Amino acid sequence: MRLTILLLLALCSAATAADNAIMGYDDAASARQREAEALFDASIDAVEMDGWLKLLSATPHHAGSPASKKNADFIAELLKSWGYAVEIAEYQILLPTPKVREIELLAPTQFKASLREDSLEEDASTFVRDELLAPYNAFSVDGEVEGELVFVNYGTPEDYEILERYGIDVKGRIVIARYGHSWRGIKPKLAGEKGAIATILYSDPADDGYGAGDAYPKGPFKHESGVQRGSVMDMPTYPGDVLTPGRGATRNARRLKRGDAPTITSIPVLPMSQRDALPFLAALDGEVVPDEWRGGLPITYHFGPGPARVRMKARFNWDMVTAYNVIARLEGSKFPDEWVIRGNHHDGWNHGAADPLSGLVATLAEAKAVAMLAQDGRRPLRTMIYAVWDAEEPGLIGSTEWAEHHAADLKEHAVAYINTDGSDRGFINIGGSHVLERFFNQVIEEVDDPRSAISLKERRRAHDLIYGDEKEKATARDRADLRIYPLGSGSDYTPFLQHLGIASANVNFGGEAADGSYHTLYDTYEHYTKFQDPGLKYGTTLAKVTGHAALRLANAPRLPFEFKGFADNIALYVGELEELANSMREETDETNQLLDDGTYAAAINPYKSIRVPARKEPVPHFNFAPLKNALDRLQQAADRYDEAAEGRTGVSSKINNLLFTSERLLTRDAGLGGRPWYKHHIYAPGFYTGYGVKTIPGVREAIEEREYEKVAPQITIAASVLNDMAARIELISEEIGHD
Amino acid sequence: MRLTILLLLALCSAATAADNAIMGYDDAASARQREAEALFDASIDAVEMDGWLKLLSATPHHAGSPASKKNADFIAELLKSWGYAVEIAEYQILLPTPKVREIELLAPTQFKASLREDSLEEDASTFVRDELLAPYNAFSVDGEVEGELVFVNYGTPEDYEILERYGIDVKGRIVIARYGHSWRGIKPKLAGEKGAIATILYSDPADDGYGAGDAYPKGPFKHESGVQRGSVMDMPTYPGDVLTPGRGATRNARRLKRGDAPTITSIPVLPMSQRDALPFLAALDGEVVPDEWRGGLPITYHFGPGPARVRMKARFNWDMVTAYNVIARLEGSKFPDEWVIRGNHHDGWNHGAADPLSGLVATLAEAKAVAMLAQDGRRPLRTMIYAVWDAEEPGLIGSTEWAEHHAADLKEHAVAYINTDGSDRGFINIGGSHVLERFFNQVIEEVDDPRSAISLKERRRAHDLIYGDEKEKATARDRADLRIYPLGSGSDYTPFLQHLGIASANVNFGGEAADGSYHTLYDTYEHYTKFQDPGLKYGTTLAKVTGHAALRLANAPRLPFEFKGFADNIALYVGELEELANSMREETDETNQLLDDGTYAAAINPYKSIRVPARKEPVPHFNFAPLKNALDRLQQAADRYDEAAEGRTGVSSKINNLLFTSERLLTRDAGLGGRPWYKHHIYAPGFYTGYGVKTIPGVREAIEEREYEKVAPQITIAASVLNDMAARIELISEEIGHD
Repeated sequence: MRLTILLLLALCSAATAADNAIMGYDDAASARQREAEALFDASIDAVEMDGWLKLLSATPHHAGSPASKKNADFIAELLKSWGYAVEIAEYQILLPTPKVREIELLAPTQFKASLREDSLEEDASTFVRDELLAPYNAFSVDGEVEGELVFVNYGTPEDYEILERYGIDVKGRIVIARYGHSWRGIKPKLAGEKGAIATILYSDPADDGYGAGDAYPKGPFKHESGVQRGSVMDMPTYPGDVLTPGRGATRNARRLKRGDAPTITSIPVLPMSQRDALPFLAALDGEVVPDEWRGGLPITYHFGPGPARVRMKARFNWDMVTAYNVIARLEGSKFPDEWVIRGNHHDGWNHGAADPLSGLVATLAEAKAVAMLAQDGRRPLRTMIYAVWDAEEPGLIGSTEWAEHHAADLKEHAVAYINTDGSDRGFINIGGSHVLERFFNQVIEEVDDPRSAISLKERRRAHDLIYGDEKEKATARDRADLRIYPLGSGSDYTPFLQHLGIASANVNFGGEAADGSYHTLYDTYEHYTKFQDPGLKYGTTLAKVTGHAALRLANAPRLPFEFKGFADNIALYVGELEELANSMREETDETNQLLDDGTYAAAINPYKSIRVPARKEPVPHFNFAPLKNALDRLQQAADRYDEAAEGRTGVSSKINNLLFTSERLLTRDAGLGGRPWYKHHIYAPGFYTGYGVKTIPGVREAIEEREYEKVAPQITIAASVLNDMAARIELISEEIGHD
Repeated sequence: MRLTILLLLALCSAATAADNAIMGYDDAASARQREAEALFDASIDAVEMDGWLKLLSATPHHAGSPASKKNADFIAELLKSWGYAVEIAEYQILLPTPKVREIELLAPTQFKASLREDSLEEDASTFVRDELLAPYNAFSVDGEVEGELVFVNYGTPEDYEILERYGIDVKGRIVIARYGHSWRGIKPKLAGEKGAIATILYSDPADDGYGAGDAYPKGPFKHESGVQRGSVMDMPTYPGDVLTPGRGATRNARRLKRGDAPTITSIPVLPMSQRDALPFLAALDGEVVPDEWRGGLPITYHFGPGPARVRMKARFNWDMVTAYNVIARLEGSKFPDEWVIRGNHHDGWNHGAADPLSGLVATLAEAKAVAMLAQDGRRPLRTMIYAVWDAEEPGLIGSTEWAEHHAADLKEHAVAYINTDGSDRGFINIGGSHVLERFFNQVIEEVDDPRSAISLKERRRAHDLIYGDEKEKATARDRADLRIYPLGSGSDYTPFLQHLGIASANVNFGGEAADGSYHTLYDTYEHYTKFQDPGLKYGTTLAKVTGHAALRLANAPRLPFEFKGFADNIALYVGELEELANSMREETDETNQLLDDGTYAAAINPYKSIRVPARKEPVPHFNFAPLKNALDRLQQAADRYDEAAEGRTGVSSKINNLLFTSERLLTRDAGLGGRPWYKHHIYAPGFYTGYGVKTIPGVREAIEEREYEKVAPQITIAASVLNDMAARIELISEEIGHD
C-alpha cells in the first residue's frame, strides 16, 4: 500500500523527466520499466543501509580473517532471505600478512619507526583492534637490508628522470617515496628496476594530511599516525592470486611456486606515517629537491643519498587462505542465459567503512529492492547476479579467481558487469565500455542529485563546465552525452572487462568529500558518516543509479548497446595517439637541438649538480592510416546501426547476443605485449601508471616507451580489433533489417 | 704597465666579439671606445670591492642613522679621492622609526609575538646590533586595535575576490597577510580600503624559508626568526618624502601636515617572522583555505575570522631626519651640459650587504675606473654623475627629493639614468626605456659571463630558451634583440623615468641565488659572500656592464637611441590591451552566462560556505583605432630613422638633444588619473600591484579596474603621446638628412 502511493508520486515526477523511450524499449515497455524503477526507488532505505554499514564495519575484516568470513556469511544470509540462490564461491589463495616490520634510521641520528596508528578518543572504532592487520604492503617480498636513503618524490618515471639529471643513482640504496600520482605498486616496481634494495612508502601531509585540510578527528584528512596499507602486487602484469595466473584458484588448481610468481615485488616494501617519515626525511642531505617535489612537512626536502642510513626488515606470513565470494543469482524470467552482473567487494583493510562498505551497502539495498520487485511479480527478464567479492584489497583476487574459473560461461552469457566500490559524495563518476555510454547518460538523466532538484547528469555537466579543463568544458558544452571515462584498473571490473571482454562499468560519487582515511585505521563508521556521506544521501542515490542500470539491462527488449558514442571516443583516442607522437617528436627535436647547440649547457646553473637532460632518440613518423581507416569504417557502421535501430525494438535473441558479445571482439587471446593476461586492446591499466588507464594501450605504450619498432605491429592489431567491431556492427544492422 | 698588458690581452679577445661599430660611433670612434673599455675592465678589482662591501656592511646603516652618515662620508671621500667633484646633497625628510610594537594573541590561546630576530653563532654580523632598527614597516600609521583575525593569503585583489566568495568580510578585523605576489605596501592599502583595522605581514616558509630551500645559516633561505622590514608608504601614489610631493625636501620647503600625507597607511601595519606567525595562524578556524593559499607551516590553513582574537599596538618616532645623497660629478670634456647619470643607494635596512651594497660596490668600482680613464687622458665627452642615494628603503626618498629639487635642470640636461641596486648571480636582467633596448643588447654582447665563455646576451638567450614561457622562448628564438623589460618601481629609477621622463634603465644579475635574506638581520657580508656571489664574480661583471653602458652614452658621437625596438614593444603592449579587453569580455560573458543559467549554482559544493562569484558588468568594445594609427605612424617613423641614421655618425648637438629629450614626450604634466606625480604614459607601477609594471597604464588600468568610461579618454592620451614621439622621430630623421 505504501509502495503504491510512493509509486504514484514518483511516476508524476518521472513523467516529465523522461517522456522519451528508454534505450532498447518501446513506449509500453518504457512505461512498465519506469513504474518498476519508481517502486525500486521506494525500497531503498537509508536507515537499513546505515545499519548494515555499522554492523559490517564494526571490526577490521580483511580477507582471510574470521571477521571477513563472518561478514560474508551475514551477506549471504541476507541475500538468501530476499530470495536469491546464493553460493559461497571459495578460492584458495596465497595471502601474505605481516610478521616482522622494522624500519630504523641508523645515522646521522637514530630513530625507530613505530609503524603503528593511534587509537583516538573521538572514534570508538579505532579501539577495536582485534584481527587488525598492522600497516604493510601486501605482496612485498621478504627482506632485510641496510643502506643509504634516497628521496624519490612519488617514484614515477618522471621522477627518475629528475634524479638522473641530478646524477643520483638509487642502485644499492633504499628509496623513500610518497604515496600519490601513480598506483602504489608502481613505486617499488620502478625502484627495483633501477636497482634499489628496498622501498619505504609514506603519506605526505601535503597530499592528504593537514596540508590538504583538517586532520582526523577534527576533519577528514589523514591523522599524523595514519598509514595507507595496500597491495604492491604487480597488477599491471596480472591481478588475482599470484600463484594461478589465468586459472581459478580452486583447491586443486595448478600453482606456480611462490619464488616464480612474477607479481610479487623484487624488493621489500613497507609503508609508514608522516610522523614516522619526518625524522628520515629530515636526515637527508644533498641537493634540495625541485619545487614540485616539496611536501608539507616542516623541513627542507633533500634528495640524499644519505647521510641518512636505514635498516629495514620485512617478513610476512605466506599463508594460503580461503577467499569467500558471495554469489547471489536471480534467474531471469525470459532470458535466463543472459546474465547481468553487479559486483562490490566486502573485504576491507581495516574497518573499511568507506572502502568498500559504502558501495556494498548500496549494492545490498539494490539487491534487496530487485528481489522485492521480483516478489511483486516483476522478476527481471534476464538473470541477475549479485557478486560480493572477497580479497579485492590484496589484488582483485576474489573477482579475478571467479572470473578465471568461470571464464567460458561468462564469455558466453555475460551481458555486462557493473561494479561499485567505495563512494562518497558530490558528482556522479561513471567509467566503462563506451558501447554503454549513451545508455548510462540516459540513466543519470532520470535520477536526481539528492541535494539539488536537478538530475545527476545536469549536475555532472555543471561540474565539467565550471571545474573542467578546456577539453572537458567543450565536451560539456557541445556534446549531448557526457563522456564516461575509460577504465584502467583499481577495482573488480578488471577481470571482466580486460581479461574476458565483457562490457563493464564502474560507478561512484565523489569530488566533494576529499579525505585521508583510505586504507588506514581511520576508515571507520564514525569517519564516514560524519565527513563523507552524512545520512547516506549519496549512498541511496548510488543504489538508484546502478539499480536502474542493472534493471534496464535485465529487462531491455533489445540491449541498449550503441556504437556512435563508442566510435566518437575511439576517434578521440586515435587523435590523442597522433598528437602524442607529434608532440614527443617536436619536444625531442627541440631538446636535442638545444643540447646540440649548447643552449642547455649555457643555461644550466653551474652552482648546482643538475645536468642537462639526456639526448633522446628522434621520434619517427608512424603510419596511422590503418587505424584511421578502421575508425572511418567504425563510424559509418555506427551511423548505420543507429538508423537501422531507430524506432525498432523487436526482440531477437540473436541480435542481443551479437550486441553483448561485441565487446569480446576488442580482445585478442594473445593479450598485450609482455602481459598476456590483459586481452583488451582498447582499455588497459598502464604498465607504469598502475590504475591509470591507457587507451589503445598497445600503440600508446609503444610510443610512450619509445619502442618505435613495436608501433606499426600494434597499429595493425588495434586496427584489426576495430575492423572486427565494425564488421560486427554492420552485421547487427543487417540483422535488424531482416528482423 | 700592468694596465697596458691587460689592455692588449683584452683587445685580442674583444676584437673577435665586436667587429661591428658601436651604436652611434664610427669605426675609429668604436675602436677608441673599445680600447677604453678594455682599460676600464682591467681596473675593476674584486678584492677592493670586497673590502668596501665588508666595511660598508659592518653595522646596520639605515637612513637617519649615524652609521649611514658615516658610510655616506666614506663614499664621498672615496669619490673625491678619485677626482670627482663631490657634493653631499641633504634633504630633511620625515622618517618614522619603531617605538612600540606589540602583537598579542588573546584567544583562543595566548601568545605574545617576540618580533625579534636571533643572533647566530655562524654569522658574527648578526651580533652587531648597535643602531639596529627593530622589524617594522615604515610609514605605517600609529594605532592600537583589537579584533578577530582573518587570513588573507597575499592580500591581493584576487585574494579578496576569494574571501568574498566565502562570505568573509575583513571589516573591523585584523588581517594577516603573507609577503609576496605583490609589493608589500599594497597589502595594508587594500586591507584598509576593505575596512580592516590593522595588517600583520609575515614571511611564510613556503615562499622564502625552509620550504624554498635550506634556511640560514645552513642555506641561504629565511631563518625562522627572520622578519622582512620594508616601507608600506603608498608609492604608487607618489614616492619620496611623504610631506613634500613634487618638491625637493629642502630645509624650507613647503610641507604637508603629517595627518594630511596621503601616502601614510590608513591602518597600522607590523611584520613578523614565521615563528611568530605560527600560533596566530594555528589559532584560526572557519573554512579551510583553497589549495593555492596554503603555506608551508605544519598546520591546516584556515580563513578565520577568529576564534583568534588579536591585539596590536604600533607607535613610531615621527622624526625629521637628514638624508645624505652623495653626488659626484665628472665634467664632460666636450658636452658638459649633457649628463649621463648612474645611481645606487647606500642606506640599508640592516647591514644591507646584498641590498644595496652588492650593487653599490660595483658602482664604486665603476666610478673609480671611469676616473682612472679620465686621469689617463680619456675623460668622457659628456658629464658623468655618480649619485649614491640615501633613504631609498623607506620610499626612494633621497633620489626622489634630488630629482624633484633639480627637475628643471635634469629635464634639460639628463641624457639617461642608469640604476643599480642589490644584485646576486645568474643571468643579466635589464629593464628600462625601450629607446635603449638595442643599445643595451650591444653592450651585453660584448661582456662575457664570468662562469662560461659566452656573452651575457647569449647566456640570457639560453635562459629564455630553456626556462622562458612560450612568448619568451619565441622572442629568444626569433628576435635579434632580447627584450628589456618595462620598468614598474622598486628602486631609484622611478623619479627619473616616471616623474621626469628621462630614459632610464635598471641592471642586475639574478636567477641562480634565490634566498631569504631580503630586509632581514641576515643580509650580511657573511651571507652574501657565502651564498649569493662568492668572489664577487657577478659583481665585477655588473660593473663592466653598467660601466660600458655609461661610457658609451658619455662618449657617443651620436646618442645610441633607437626607435624600432621601442615601436616593436609598443606594438606588443597595444596587442596586450586588445587581448586583455577581449579575454575579460569573453570571461565575463561566460561567467555571467553560467550564473544566469544556474550552472554555477549547480556545481557549487553545498557542504561548504563558498558562493558563486559575483555577476560582473559586461565589457564593451573599445575603439583602439587611435592607438593603432599612432602605432603605425611610430613604426614608419622608426623605420625611417634607421634608414636615415644608417652609416652616418656626424656629431650634432641639436640632433643629440632631440634624441635624449624624446623620452620626455611620453609624459604629460597632468600625470596619470588620480596620481599626478606619475607623468609617464607608457610605464608606471601598478596602482594595485605596487612594483609590478603596467604598460600604457592609463588605458590598461581603466580596463582592468572596469572603469569603462575612462578607456576612450585614456586611449586618446596614449595615442597623442605616441604621435608626439613619432613626430619627434620624423623631425630627427629630417635633421639627419640636412646634416
